[in-house]
Amino acid sequence: MKASIVTIGNEILTGHTVNTNAAYIADRLLTIGAGVVSCHTVGDEIGVIVRALKAAIKEADVILATGGLGATADDLTREATAKFLGVKLRLKKDLLRKIEYRFKKRNLKMPDNNRRQGYLPQGAKAIENCVGSAPGFKVSFEGKSIYVMPGVPGEMKAMFERRVLPEIKKRLGLKLNAGRGVTVIRKLNCFGASESQIAEEICDMCGRERSPVINFTVGYGVVTLHITAKGLSLSEAAGKADEDVKILTKRLGNLVFGSGEEGLAEALGRCLRERRMSIAVAESCTGGLIASELTEIPGASEYFKYGWIAYSNTAKISELGVPARLLGRYGAVSEQAARAMAKGAREKARADIAIAVTGIAGPAGGSKQKPVGLVYISVEMKGLKETQRFIFSGSRDFIRRRAANTAINMARLAILEVD
Amino acid sequence: MKASIVTIGNEILTGHTVNTNAAYIADRLLTIGAGVVSCHTVGDEIGVIVRALKAAIKEADVILATGGLGATADDLTREATAKFLGVKLRLKKDLLRKIEYRFKKRNLKMPDNNRRQGYLPQGAKAIENCVGSAPGFKVSFEGKSIYVMPGVPGEMKAMFERRVLPEIKKRLGLKLNAGRGVTVIRKLNCFGASESQIAEEICDMCGRERSPVINFTVGYGVVTLHITAKGLSLSEAAGKADEDVKILTKRLGNLVFGSGEEGLAEALGRCLRERRMSIAVAESCTGGLIASELTEIPGASEYFKYGWIAYSNTAKISELGVPARLLGRYGAVSEQAARAMAKGAREKARADIAIAVTGIAGPAGGSKQKPVGLVYISVEMKGLKETQRFIFSGSRDFIRRRAANTAINMARLAILEVD
Repeated sequence: MKASIVTIGNEILTGHTVNTNAAYIADRLLTIGAGVVSCHTVGDEIGVIVRALKAAIKEADVILATGGLGATADDLTREATAKFLGVKLRLKKDLLRKIEYRFKKRNLKMPDNNRRQGYLPQGAKAIENCVGSAPGFKVSFEGKSIYVMPGVPGEMKAMFERRVLPEIKKRLGLKLNAGRGVTVIRKLNCFGASESQIAEEICDMCGRERSPVINFTVGYGVVTLHITAKGLSLSEAAGKADEDVKILTKRLGNLVFGSGEEGLAEALGRCLRERRMSIAVAESCTGGLIASELTEIPGASEYFKYGWIAYSNTAKISELGVPARLLGRYGAVSEQAARAMAKGAREKARADIAIAVTGIAGPAGGSKQKPVGLVYISVEMKGLKETQRFIFSGSRDFIRRRAANTAINMARLAILEVD
Repeated sequence: MKASIVTIGNEILTGHTVNTNAAYIADRLLTIGAGVVSCHTVGDEIGVIVRALKAAIKEADVILATGGLGATADDLTREATAKFLGVKLRLKKDLLRKIEYRFKKRNLKMPDNNRRQGYLPQGAKAIENCVGSAPGFKVSFEGKSIYVMPGVPGEMKAMFERRVLPEIKKRLGLKLNAGRGVTVIRKLNCFGASESQIAEEICDMCGRERSPVINFTVGYGVVTLHITAKGLSLSEAAGKADEDVKILTKRLGNLVFGSGEEGLAEALGRCLRERRMSIAVAESCTGGLIASELTEIPGASEYFKYGWIAYSNTAKISELGVPARLLGRYGAVSEQAARAMAKGAREKARADIAIAVTGIAGPAGGSKQKPVGLVYISVEMKGLKETQRFIFSGSRDFIRRRAANTAINMARLAILEVD
């Protein structure tokens, strides 16, 4: 089954609201094996809404529309849907009574504006809104279904989960044997090689005609493989996807750190917890990013005890015991400084493993010998001491995040190596 | 001028990535008075990309497309654009040389895959990518412009800001007198009161029929006022918006901490820099979030010297000199502990001001006396010591971010108060 999403609202087009509704709906539909083929975002104007519905109905079996169901004059989705269907709006008396009752219950007089919400396109079936005043509705067109839901995320989600998703699921169940199939996506998260290096490694699996299809996304050095499998049943599609996950995990080895939504910090946390190890971090240019990522994971206090943001030289000396003459000779951004920071952090925290990072995040502070983006990362644990030099390019934010991810991954690999 | 956005990538359609690119572009275009009329999101398939470009070109004068410019076989935007234009892809030798140079510079062999990025539709002009390897490009079609940018947000933003936006702005400048009118949006960022409290405070300015229109968005306690003004010229619209900004800033007083994209950390950084003050932070439940936000600001090393993540009791005792018996009597999450952490941090760092945070971010670790969400924040500077108790509700992430923002704002207000 193919789905298309139509999100309606000027606030999305102006960029003031990020379109989280579309991502939410798409994600939930995939869990039941329905794929979203397109998403159209338009403003509160009858003409453009009609155009979007026309485009969506060509592409999909089911349309999920959100927004424009409020009580004010700029809420035009009801009118536009009627126009698209070639029918009139009709007052649904029972619906209006329900809306009136919502206000009555709270001892409020219903504003006249809200009467608008009692009108639906002829033939439409109202969908109850348990959270807010705007009812949704469902219409059919040429054997296809159009669900129209409110744009407020909380109201949309409640309506989608309670009323819309179960109906689509049921319909999908009945149609499963009709031959169009279901889609399942698995994700594998990698670090330590570029997107194109990984693609080369597994090029025999990356063909567009192959099934499952493998797609790549990248963020701050994390390369995520999306494995999209199709099948006639959920178990068939899941089976294919999981088989690919197994093959890829074996072939890519330690490049793979997790699956699904698991990030690097979670993967390192798992390594630490499984071995009952503790960790300490000493950060200069990453300025707390590594610590904040590690402590974002629930239960991090089991393994994370101490962290320092030794931003100044005096902090490196007084808090981590880095010798002043070392800083004088090699500078704060040096292999020697990184190593001394890791040593100091590990000793002071009595931690099993310590990470230290020092570098130049920019935009200022670089020189010819030590350019912006130069970062030293040191990891120290029993049986392993390692310091690496990196040159990252990009903005301050990018350099910091890339350095933090690289450091977390180095700690993960160090633990696996010593095992 | 009307713009349409086409975002390309299976990862957006599956809901695994929220479409922040579209919101970013729309927001930035509005600042120069160009309105987005539609946004189409499609997957990595030639047919649907062509369809989206066709729909977009009907609706707008300029198309901003993102995604599908990577080096792997699933990156099909180059091919699709060529098909849309009815032309072939051509190897751009100078472009390929630039891509090869990127790898050479870092002593890496360019994977064969990256050759793909040297091909552009015939007649296209390459747009340099200063951050990553995927070049963008621009093509013209029936007097309209299509800009194609990478999908990785950092790369897209850099390219959009440096190359695309200035070009559109220039083009718009020529067309300004064509009579369509322009929209200008200003943003005012507030902290310390809820959206509805602020709305009540300025209710006389919040009518929907008023011009400029004022809208609200909220994130981790930050309430942003969007002031949307329309006018026949850029200066007329900007004048109206700026007049509102002046009135609102005066009426809301210290609730306003910044404008535009300025965040709390930047606002505090400005306060510190103007007074040549230094700051130290001691974090427990926020785990480095405050430090990482403060050090995200370029030049933060001027005022940020020391930070501690004293996650365990032993760290609070050994690093910040919190008395062990104090922790024994009152617990680590207590007013007394927060105060002692701030005192210890300020003394050890010899900082002008120190912030300390201790709390329970959850999901586990709460009790009846000390529930999840309980956070103590202490600020200490010459002439002012203040500790406040908060109960934040929501997820671990929300509690941590809300606590970090609140702490940064407390430091900002403390400095303003002592002035």
